[in-house]
Amino acid sequence: MLGRTRRLALLAEGRFTPLDAKTAVGVLRYRPAEVAAVIDSTRAGARAQDLVGAGGETPVVADLDAAAARGADALLVGVAPQGGELPPAWRATVLDALGRGWDVFSGLHAFLADDPELAERARATGALLIDVRRPPARRPIAARRAAGVDALVVLTVGSDCNVGKMTAALETQAELGRRGVRASFVATGQTGILIAGGGVAVDAVPSDFVAGLTEELVIEAAQDADVVLVEGQGSLLHPGYSGVTLGLLHGACPAALVLCHQAGRERIRRPGAGDPGDGEPAFPPLADLARLYEQAAAWVHPAAVVGVALNTMGLEEVDARAAVAGARAATGLAATDPVRFGAGPLADAIERRAAERRTRAAHA
Amino acid sequence: MLGRTRRLALLAEGRFTPLDAKTAVGVLRYRPAEVAAVIDSTRAGARAQDLVGAGGETPVVADLDAAAARGADALLVGVAPQGGELPPAWRATVLDALGRGWDVFSGLHAFLADDPELAERARATGALLIDVRRPPARRPIAARRAAGVDALVVLTVGSDCNVGKMTAALETQAELGRRGVRASFVATGQTGILIAGGGVAVDAVPSDFVAGLTEELVIEAAQDADVVLVEGQGSLLHPGYSGVTLGLLHGACPAALVLCHQAGRERIRRPGAGDPGDGEPAFPPLADLARLYEQAAAWVHPAAVVGVALNTMGLEEVDARAAVAGARAATGLAATDPVRFGAGPLADAIERRAAERRTRAAHA
Repeated sequence: MLGRTRRLALLAEGRFTPLDAKTAVGVLRYRPAEVAAVIDSTRAGARAQDLVGAGGETPVVADLDAAAARGADALLVGVAPQGGELPPAWRATVLDALGRGWDVFSGLHAFLADDPELAERARATGALLIDVRRPPARRPIAARRAAGVDALVVLTVGSDCNVGKMTAALETQAELGRRGVRASFVATGQTGILIAGGGVAVDAVPSDFVAGLTEELVIEAAQDADVVLVEGQGSLLHPGYSGVTLGLLHGACPAALVLCHQAGRERIRRPGAGDPGDGEPAFPPLADLARLYEQAAAWVHPAAVVGVALNTMGLEEVDARAAVAGARAATGLAATDPVRFGAGPLADAIERRAAERRTRAAHA
Repeated sequence: MLGRTRRLALLAEGRFTPLDAKTAVGVLRYRPAEVAAVIDSTRAGARAQDLVGAGGETPVVADLDAAAARGADALLVGVAPQGGELPPAWRATVLDALGRGWDVFSGLHAFLADDPELAERARATGALLIDVRRPPARRPIAARRAAGVDALVVLTVGSDCNVGKMTAALETQAELGRRGVRASFVATGQTGILIAGGGVAVDAVPSDFVAGLTEELVIEAAQDADVVLVEGQGSLLHPGYSGVTLGLLHGACPAALVLCHQAGRERIRRPGAGDPGDGEPAFPPLADLARLYEQAAAWVHPAAVVGVALNTMGLEEVDARAAVAGARAATGLAATDPVRFGAGPLADAIERRAAERRTRAAHA
């Protein structure tokens, strides 16, 4: 991960659940061989798979000593608390890890390497403090350049945060790879960066440069790929994050969109773990949401929604299948839960789109 | 300005024109008593008014010595070069100013106070380095809270950057003030901050917090006002800046929008001085652009465009009047060039809107 293979302890103290420990769950799903243990003293003794549906036999342990006994040699702050600061209770754990010479990865908005106490401890033992959300120093302004790449650019968009945009992109990339299609993944958030080993956390970038840095990432990823899958962020409907979403959309200039949604979620979840969003307006129907994204894309570069990725976490299989069928009927588009039922329908739709694009290019 | 009254030298070397020296022109128009001179050696000897249509007798001079002779005791970097860095040629001027003990204001993305050489020079003489674009350390996430204020929130939006959104807001605030309406101004860009003495440059804020900081500014500004005029940024049609625009729109939750446009500008001006935007698509008609903004606002909170502010800079008066009449006819809304013909029609429309709002509130 980000340089060399490590054995990570994932710090998710008190919050190792599918919705609260998004970063930990993502790393467990896509980099399981690099995880030694999850730290959550309130759930110690459990198996990751049983709690979050990923990670197999990876044990949940109480503290650093127990993680070390499982072979951990690095620490990842695996949850993102409201406000982006390191919770005071975790500071001791991070200091302890650095004292052992463990590298510490963090996706917090508050950069650990800028904390004098943590930086001093890291210097003393030679450990690295790696803030994956720290933006690059470059300041590019987007100018629709990503629209010019030969590859088909696909962006995952969604009804809300945390509905499966990164997962849909990664599962579709893997499925296309199995089919022999050269598909690259552009990480735009801290979890994606940890999984992919590169990318930019656009939510931490000064807002003027979100689109410009996205444009750079897409152009680079298109050099060796026929399909570029860009990890989406936030939602155009989200009162807090919509600007991040639009900057990403207009910087990436996708030709195709995959619309992501969690089955049963009816409204924006407000910041704060488990908030049901009472009082928020209901989402529009999926077909209207697809049109909304297409309209917003077209302000800069036209894009078409080609499929729906439905997160059916927590539903019984029969209900999950019904939800997917319902999404397909409501939109007339390919639909699947890419984790549960595979990304095949999305890969099919993207391959069709890429073929149409090649045909058009050949006749142009 | 930002604390105490100073006599500024505005550094606009080689670029003291209405479009390139936006910050300098804004300060000249709204804080003329605080400007001693403009520095542009290529235009030394001219009068500000003759070059940029603001600033009256303020002289354009060749260098710091000449500005000092006119009474300057502080320096403002009055243009924002592409990329946001201090041009090497200006470093000597900034060092010279700091060496004289002058405070230096900057709206660059590259913060002068973080530059070791400049910071050391400032320390040596006790001068201040004031980076007006530096974002606050707070990390609020917006949640539609600004929709709850009693004041009427009005946001200026536009077809492009640099069409007059700040000016429309300031002129309308002044006109409402003359009518006895308590109207406050929320600065969201470096020039507005210099003029208002506060605010946040949202384009430099990590994108996650643009809407949240805007929400805070609006709620604060609404405490002592019946109308809050929020300075808009960018354009939803701009490939580089649209995310900033949407974050601001969804954070401010305005009920009313003023649509700003420069008469005769047909497409986005790309970054770089004087770029005509060849190859960019044409703007939609003003009425369509108004609907586009209303749709995007409604994703989070509904807003109505209540008027058009047309920048007719460079047009003969007869053509300017025709352009304003054309905008009025095309949209069915109040229209004016607030600098040239006064903000009366916009103030009228806003007063009507505020009265309707009070009536509805009284019946609710």
